[in-house]
Amino acid sequence: MATTGVTAPAGFVAAGVTAGIKPSGNPDMALVVNTGPEYVAAAVTTRNKVVAAPVKVTRKAVADGVLRAVVFNSGNANACNGRQGDEDAVAMQEHTAAALGVAADDVAVCSTGRIGDLLPMDIIRKGIDQMSTSLGDDGTAAATAIITTDTVAKEAVVVRDGWTVGGMAKGVGMMAPSLATMLTCITTDALVTPEVLDRALRAASAVTFDTLDIDGTTSTNDSVVIMASGASGVTPSAEDLADAVLDISRDLARQLQSDAEGVTKRVSITVEGTTTDEQALNAARTIGRDNLFKCAMFGSDPNWGRVLAAVGMAEADMDPDNISVYFNGQPVCEGSTGAPGAREVDLSGADIEVRVDLGTGGSGIATVSTTDLSYAYVEINSEYST
Amino acid sequence: MATTGVTAPAGFVAAGVTAGIKPSGNPDMALVVNTGPEYVAAAVTTRNKVVAAPVKVTRKAVADGVLRAVVFNSGNANACNGRQGDEDAVAMQEHTAAALGVAADDVAVCSTGRIGDLLPMDIIRKGIDQMSTSLGDDGTAAATAIITTDTVAKEAVVVRDGWTVGGMAKGVGMMAPSLATMLTCITTDALVTPEVLDRALRAASAVTFDTLDIDGTTSTNDSVVIMASGASGVTPSAEDLADAVLDISRDLARQLQSDAEGVTKRVSITVEGTTTDEQALNAARTIGRDNLFKCAMFGSDPNWGRVLAAVGMAEADMDPDNISVYFNGQPVCEGSTGAPGAREVDLSGADIEVRVDLGTGGSGIATVSTTDLSYAYVEINSEYST
Repeated sequence: MATTGVTAPAGFVAAGVTAGIKPSGNPDMALVVNTGPEYVAAAVTTRNKVVAAPVKVTRKAVADGVLRAVVFNSGNANACNGRQGDEDAVAMQEHTAAALGVAADDVAVCSTGRIGDLLPMDIIRKGIDQMSTSLGDDGTAAATAIITTDTVAKEAVVVRDGWTVGGMAKGVGMMAPSLATMLTCITTDALVTPEVLDRALRAASAVTFDTLDIDGTTSTNDSVVIMASGASGVTPSAEDLADAVLDISRDLARQLQSDAEGVTKRVSITVEGTTTDEQALNAARTIGRDNLFKCAMFGSDPNWGRVLAAVGMAEADMDPDNISVYFNGQPVCEGSTGAPGAREVDLSGADIEVRVDLGTGGSGIATVSTTDLSYAYVEINSEYST
Repeated sequence: MATTGVTAPAGFVAAGVTAGIKPSGNPDMALVVNTGPEYVAAAVTTRNKVVAAPVKVTRKAVADGVLRAVVFNSGNANACNGRQGDEDAVAMQEHTAAALGVAADDVAVCSTGRIGDLLPMDIIRKGIDQMSTSLGDDGTAAATAIITTDTVAKEAVVVRDGWTVGGMAKGVGMMAPSLATMLTCITTDALVTPEVLDRALRAASAVTFDTLDIDGTTSTNDSVVIMASGASGVTPSAEDLADAVLDISRDLARQLQSDAEGVTKRVSITVEGTTTDEQALNAARTIGRDNLFKCAMFGSDPNWGRVLAAVGMAEADMDPDNISVYFNGQPVCEGSTGAPGAREVDLSGADIEVRVDLGTGGSGIATVSTTDLSYAYVEINSEYST
């Protein structure tokens, strides 16, 4: 059994190649194939109203709970390309299906890169042909071929009693990722029904990829696809499957957060003391998206006033005179006023934990993971034609 | 008649002094006094749920449509200071009223600076005493004393037939300003009722200060106060007054935009082709707050894909397949796909105009003014204890 990423579970092969889409000459196409005996699948995709062509294809393909393969390209998002873009995404699906000898509607398509350029279809077709003849157990080759501004490939494996979950990811975020699209592919050799798999993926995404909020921007291409081969012959309980999918999603989300564009700090924001979990999530997101707060984190500045100014605009029940803020477990604001020693709290480490109690006594609670706002973020995102 | 800012209209005197709040030794207190014969006033203040103590005092003071003076300090926001902060704001109001020999509830209070530090009340009282004996026609001294991270003082004058409107402002934004609070004081010698003055101010704010959206952060201290002395003896029509207040608000808002933290580009975003003006405003704000879009503007990058990715998350009716985008009047995206020559549009100038048609045929339209996201923004806002 291979030990890397998507090929760790039995019943999966993969490939990653340099087809020639990226001017840099870096690997830019990947293929993950489920060899069975089962072909159960589920997916969650972007909530953006502007949806890339490959996402439309993937939504349709996975609707019946069955996938045999996922084909990826990086360097071009195939988004906002009109009817030609839709046709190209379908052609990419059909060419992959033909090369593998499977039905077209059992192939999902994921693309990431710049918006608004047509896919170079000759290159795409050659890349698919090359991959279909070089499938093997090197999950890392696939993980490497899907990255864009990522600095490292991201893989994870969760081993359970007789069955395994593997995964790869690129980008930063899901509900609110960088435009450098978040793509994740998870595989397992567990024997599961589509319903159980779908439920496990949605539950895990909600508290991992969905709450990874780097810069409030949601890509047109975000997709998380999970495939189950059943090759282990083991049928875990729905709870055990959900638990394993959550573990691997947490691991991959953490890797995405650590490699976010220009990141120097990993910031976890927990909001409690409001009426509902949804309100707590709104408030945590509002803080996590506030540029002044993010700049303070970059500067290791325990500037709790920015937390209060940000959360005051959130759609959440709060007692404006009874808000408490903790940085790394130390109280910096109590009853909406500064706590003694608040300005001296040490935030110099790479990980910062922020906890905010909105003071209503309500039981709503949620956590969002974000990063600081650094010079490097601006540099990466202001360069022409990134 | 003086020609600068708030002292340009008849019936107003002002002062600006260095009281000693700021460690830098820069001017930090200002006073604007209406000498009558009328004392009509109106104000709009922050929508943040977390409200600074001086804002609470000002809201109460202006509720009856009468103000004799506004006292300002920079270098300390007097926000999130609990009951002591509330008492200090009232003490600042009462000390000013006593020094001027007017009723306490006819004095408004505006503070700007760091959140969470108690006001140095001895310094505040001495500053008020000093100002009350040095009132004169030097509006610029007052405008200079209210700035924080601003690089220049901001003043404007609008002269009409026999009457005048003057104003000063500091900071960036109103609905969504930098934490470096937006404060504006407008004066006029027109004879007006509180109702007409209030309506003129709200109408002007809605399309100027309210749509100046630098970084999505809304201060706890934002305030726009207008006072009318009636000293010209002229009663303009409600329309003429509204027009003049709009003119001066536009002028001041433009100055705020040009001096926003780290700004290198002034960006105007107009959204149309959606159902309502409110939806258009949502969509324009969503684009204007998107860090990836703002970084692209900093890089003079005509990356229209980021406009579509951002607007796709806005709460506005749109046809995702029929969105058009124009940069500086040139089409870069039509029918949600790239227009010929889109990548070559020149955005090297300091002013960039973005127009987005959401393609529904609806009549909703709105414009938001914002800036780019630069290295300097991160630098200014990540320094310890800004």
